[in-house]
Amino acid sequence: MKENRTGRVTLPVEENCDDILIQLMELWGADAIRNSDGTRLPKTLADRAEKVYETYFPVRQDLEWAQAHPQSLQEMYLLSEPKAAKDEKLAIHLLDGIFDQQLKVDVEHDPKQWWEVIDRTSGETVPPECWDYTADGVIIKDCEKWHIYTVAFLVWQIWDPTQMFNHITNDWGKSVPHSLPYNPAKPEVRERMLAYFRQWLKDNPTPNVIRFTTFFYHFCLFFNDRKKEKFVDWFGYGQSVSPELLEAFAQEKGYRLHPEDLVDQGYYNNAFRVPTLRYLEYMDFVQRFVAKTAKEVVDVCHEHGREAMMFLGDNYIGTEPYGKHFASIGLDAVVGSVGSGCTMRMIADIPGVRYTEGRFLPYFFPTVFHEGGDPVGKVNQNWLQARRAMLRNPVDRIGYGGYPSLALKFPDFITRVGEICDEFRTMYDNIAKSRPYSLLPGKVAILNCWGDLRTWQTHMVAHAMIFKQTASYIGVLEALSGMAVDVAFLSFDDIRGGVPEGISVIINAGEEGTAFSGGKAWADPKVVVALREWVHGGGGFIGVGEPTALRREGHFFQLFDVLGVDKEISLTLNYTKYNPEAAPHFITDDLDTEAELGDCCDDVYAHGAQNLIVAYGCTRAAAHDFGKGRSVYLAGLPYSAQNTRLLLRALCWAAHSEDSLKHWFSINPATECSYYPATGRYAVVNNTMEPQTTTVFKGDASCFETELAPMELKWYKIEERT
Amino acid sequence: MKENRTGRVTLPVEENCDDILIQLMELWGADAIRNSDGTRLPKTLADRAEKVYETYFPVRQDLEWAQAHPQSLQEMYLLSEPKAAKDEKLAIHLLDGIFDQQLKVDVEHDPKQWWEVIDRTSGETVPPECWDYTADGVIIKDCEKWHIYTVAFLVWQIWDPTQMFNHITNDWGKSVPHSLPYNPAKPEVRERMLAYFRQWLKDNPTPNVIRFTTFFYHFCLFFNDRKKEKFVDWFGYGQSVSPELLEAFAQEKGYRLHPEDLVDQGYYNNAFRVPTLRYLEYMDFVQRFVAKTAKEVVDVCHEHGREAMMFLGDNYIGTEPYGKHFASIGLDAVVGSVGSGCTMRMIADIPGVRYTEGRFLPYFFPTVFHEGGDPVGKVNQNWLQARRAMLRNPVDRIGYGGYPSLALKFPDFITRVGEICDEFRTMYDNIAKSRPYSLLPGKVAILNCWGDLRTWQTHMVAHAMIFKQTASYIGVLEALSGMAVDVAFLSFDDIRGGVPEGISVIINAGEEGTAFSGGKAWADPKVVVALREWVHGGGGFIGVGEPTALRREGHFFQLFDVLGVDKEISLTLNYTKYNPEAAPHFITDDLDTEAELGDCCDDVYAHGAQNLIVAYGCTRAAAHDFGKGRSVYLAGLPYSAQNTRLLLRALCWAAHSEDSLKHWFSINPATECSYYPATGRYAVVNNTMEPQTTTVFKGDASCFETELAPMELKWYKIEERT
Repeated sequence: MKENRTGRVTLPVEENCDDILIQLMELWGADAIRNSDGTRLPKTLADRAEKVYETYFPVRQDLEWAQAHPQSLQEMYLLSEPKAAKDEKLAIHLLDGIFDQQLKVDVEHDPKQWWEVIDRTSGETVPPECWDYTADGVIIKDCEKWHIYTVAFLVWQIWDPTQMFNHITNDWGKSVPHSLPYNPAKPEVRERMLAYFRQWLKDNPTPNVIRFTTFFYHFCLFFNDRKKEKFVDWFGYGQSVSPELLEAFAQEKGYRLHPEDLVDQGYYNNAFRVPTLRYLEYMDFVQRFVAKTAKEVVDVCHEHGREAMMFLGDNYIGTEPYGKHFASIGLDAVVGSVGSGCTMRMIADIPGVRYTEGRFLPYFFPTVFHEGGDPVGKVNQNWLQARRAMLRNPVDRIGYGGYPSLALKFPDFITRVGEICDEFRTMYDNIAKSRPYSLLPGKVAILNCWGDLRTWQTHMVAHAMIFKQTASYIGVLEALSGMAVDVAFLSFDDIRGGVPEGISVIINAGEEGTAFSGGKAWADPKVVVALREWVHGGGGFIGVGEPTALRREGHFFQLFDVLGVDKEISLTLNYTKYNPEAAPHFITDDLDTEAELGDCCDDVYAHGAQNLIVAYGCTRAAAHDFGKGRSVYLAGLPYSAQNTRLLLRALCWAAHSEDSLKHWFSINPATECSYYPATGRYAVVNNTMEPQTTTVFKGDASCFETELAPMELKWYKIEERT
Repeated sequence: MKENRTGRVTLPVEENCDDILIQLMELWGADAIRNSDGTRLPKTLADRAEKVYETYFPVRQDLEWAQAHPQSLQEMYLLSEPKAAKDEKLAIHLLDGIFDQQLKVDVEHDPKQWWEVIDRTSGETVPPECWDYTADGVIIKDCEKWHIYTVAFLVWQIWDPTQMFNHITNDWGKSVPHSLPYNPAKPEVRERMLAYFRQWLKDNPTPNVIRFTTFFYHFCLFFNDRKKEKFVDWFGYGQSVSPELLEAFAQEKGYRLHPEDLVDQGYYNNAFRVPTLRYLEYMDFVQRFVAKTAKEVVDVCHEHGREAMMFLGDNYIGTEPYGKHFASIGLDAVVGSVGSGCTMRMIADIPGVRYTEGRFLPYFFPTVFHEGGDPVGKVNQNWLQARRAMLRNPVDRIGYGGYPSLALKFPDFITRVGEICDEFRTMYDNIAKSRPYSLLPGKVAILNCWGDLRTWQTHMVAHAMIFKQTASYIGVLEALSGMAVDVAFLSFDDIRGGVPEGISVIINAGEEGTAFSGGKAWADPKVVVALREWVHGGGGFIGVGEPTALRREGHFFQLFDVLGVDKEISLTLNYTKYNPEAAPHFITDDLDTEAELGDCCDDVYAHGAQNLIVAYGCTRAAAHDFGKGRSVYLAGLPYSAQNTRLLLRALCWAAHSEDSLKHWFSINPATECSYYPATGRYAVVNNTMEPQTTTVFKGDASCFETELAPMELKWYKIEERT
């Protein structure tokens, strides 16, 4: 195995710890250092590092100017709490339940023009002449008694959400002023922003990589009146809205967005909502504006001879790394936090940049680095889950965050991270940016309303946070992130005219009425026709949870005929159920314990499909032949080694590729095999903290047995171990 | 306690067992005998009985005539299995999956006029010129490829469903011919039917009670191609349909029903579907026709000096005991099977007849009456569940069914039924048709799409059969059937103009999109306004499962503000949940073990309500003040003593009647107290098979402790034990 002891690793700096940092740089082979919000870069270290990152906040770097120009701050629409009219007159206090240190009602833009009052009981908009804005809030006259009313109103953002979060969490108190995000949609702000940046670059010659955190608009995050998180949507465009952008939108598109288009009944167009055309157009508009404006910032950066790196988070809205306009920004790199295999791939797969970097866990913070804490356990857990995804496509660099002085108190941790850094560099070299072998002839495509815009980003609420309602769906993506298959993301638009070439299996996973299952998309004949035709002609289809779900024309699963199962929604209890018992099948051959398919969907029954797993009389997994094609139903797929194997087998079966598991395949589900044809190398990896024995099939279907130490990653070259 | 040893009991007869029957009549104090389908009434016994029932089938008594007049048989619409067009031409085999000995395609009525082909993918009806009926089924030309098509077509009913069921179940073989149901919608059938009945009455002078089984149209029941039940709906009008009735309907209403109005996407308008106006009009039309025609039959019966008793089951469709037209039939009595408290009340509460009779379980059949069988256990279980309902309103008579000779082999059973008969007679006398005391000032109203038409009949598929999807909802009704409250059934029409007087608490219980939750009814401003206003003014509201559920205007529970809870349907995951812990409350005071609220609804969170029961972070029970009124949310309520108590306390709290539980109330949840002001008597009943101790509050809030033997029912008179 080739030794590879330096490079591709970024270290966080800490003030007055130069010796520690130098020691760590050597131990871990770090070639880059970076500061965080609040820490400065020590000169002695900067000289030793190839890359020196410094954080820059384009829209909140210049606090004084922001304080002096309150009309230049960013805005957003809020929806008031729904309130019933007990009388003919109803007063709605706008900021009830909202943290008033974060958001402030904008009365500078005429409420009658910019706000919207809706009678939620009738669904009708209340004409502006029927309400007034007063110090008491909005007063609605001539209400329909006992109807529910809401007001969508503009607010100024008077505290940057991330700084607010850190400020409150770390109890920074009055000494640290509140960051104010200004709005580059105003030309004077843009001008000021660029000028300030130019000056800053001149004043800060040390960093050769500017790490933007991020560009302009924060993902949707606002707090409640108890200073706690009220709403968070890592994908939400709500905080990009301003009268300036809306005016520009109306000018370009020839139609005006209503406040309701943006507050969306209070759902704020979160990623689970089936997007409206108007919201999609708004998103695209913001993306173009952000890309164009970010390019101006990046150009300045390049003019000054620095690299431009974007942090995928915080104010990243509109950059959309998988969107049409991202490459035009001209970034050199993207860095993001790695909490799972999915978030690893979300960063590593980004097209249009020269390199990517993953920030690994745990942060060197006292929450983990205290007496009795288990930083080694945490770093291993994080590494194991990310590593299998890296074997499909690694980031170009890794790094950690927090206070190195804290880490140094845990020598085992320092050693372990050193091993991880070496393992990463070896992996990176052995893969050499080549494409790993896929067990399937074509790609596995995830089908939902978002398509490739949300590559590796489905069912996410707030980055890697998992909810019981999403665990069974994210599990599918997490399993795929490190599986020996190529993955694509398709939107319904992508398939209306027919499923594109090169797809082996399409997966539709999600809950009824969400963007991930598809909701009303399933009422479009073009969608169901394209899929029926494609599967019948030989394609593979896997439905998870409530796939193709829409209550329409006698069925819940609109592809009931393809799946051979449907869900009982208490409208067909009158049909006597003869749900067959589970039969042995290729897909379930590996199951040695009872399958745990989560609790996202129950009450499914086979109508033609063969049941593979049945619980309490209901179908949990089923397989179905449809013409020359095949489909599989899974009730859910929380992430686990066993479920990853179950999904892999389901994919192989659906793609008529059962024999795939005789090549470049490791039998023990706790292990995986990854082969790189271009380099002739392959890896066998133990994804667990226990030792494992497995049999590995090579390309010629010959096999050998091997033992793997806990977490071991073994590299081989064809016919010889490297 | 008054001894009351004879009367009010009906015995089934068996041929060649006269001695046994005489013995049983004495032991049980039976005053009536009845035959079953297939048994004859022995003369010696008939002389000893006050009442002699004989079964009569108005539409299948005259088999020979039916065989000779196949065009006089009943019909129905079927929907073909949905089928995708793989080509421009699609052949649909109509009876695929249907038992062809029960149903036969009607080609005598022009398919082009009477059938309907629908493209289920587009939702459009295919014009008749685009399809043809051939020996191969319906051939659709110029199909949209990969669209799904169905055909709704008329079939003749060539086997009465009940006789078919018995025939197949008991393997009667070819010796017993298939009963053919003829259709009284044809005048000549009506004429023949009445003439035959007149003659039959003359030929059969013995019975003085004619037990109609039942009148004309069977509830919806058809079998699949493996001779097993395919579809059963105890409330379905599907098998009443015929061209004659449809023509008459069109003439009267001025519009024509489409086949689709009747096959209803394959749901066949089952009781869980939110009924369409067209289907409601059809139901009413059938009810009027059935009532008018049944009255002719009953009149003949009366002319011949016999009583007319209707069996509530089999061909009872259109009689609707709680409908507007039932009383006009002029029946003397209704008899029905008692499988639960609900079915007991469903029979006992029927207005417009002189008396009611309950058939208790178990039937004296070998399934229970075999060596090692437990007929005593079964009879006790049935009696205990029905008895608490009888204490609210008893049927006027009880009876059993099956073969007495089998029962006689179990002396303990004979003794126990004798005790039950005595207990029933004493209960009946002590209640003396008087109204029992209610713990609440007003009624408890069940609100759904059906209202009082389906009194005690909510969430039922096939009589007392329970499904896991319905158990949590039927439990509400079952608990109420024996609870010391008065119960009413309201439809949404009943409340649109305001909630009627005399209601203390309204309950809405059911799953999203069903007639029991209400579905699109919740989009009607009049409905939500009426309820908001009423609860705010002091009313009580209890939601169970998915009450007021409709995905509309930002909420799932449309009365989220009244309930103070809403359900997460994966569209508001972005709102951070701070679901409070459960707090002690009057409603949950009695819970001594963890509440078992079923699995019909999960993912509910409090938004203003106080959580009473929380599991895995979700609200299972909550209480909420809304103006002067109160509301309670319960995730579900499977029937149990503990849940019955939970519901009672919820009702008392919602009605501001917490103090009610200090009068005429038995503290131990395994027991109940029932007081009859008109007779000054009250009962304390042990609903379990174990001994119980309880404290009983009397009307003046004084109390006493008492011990109850297993299953004991103790009667008291005010200030003295009777």
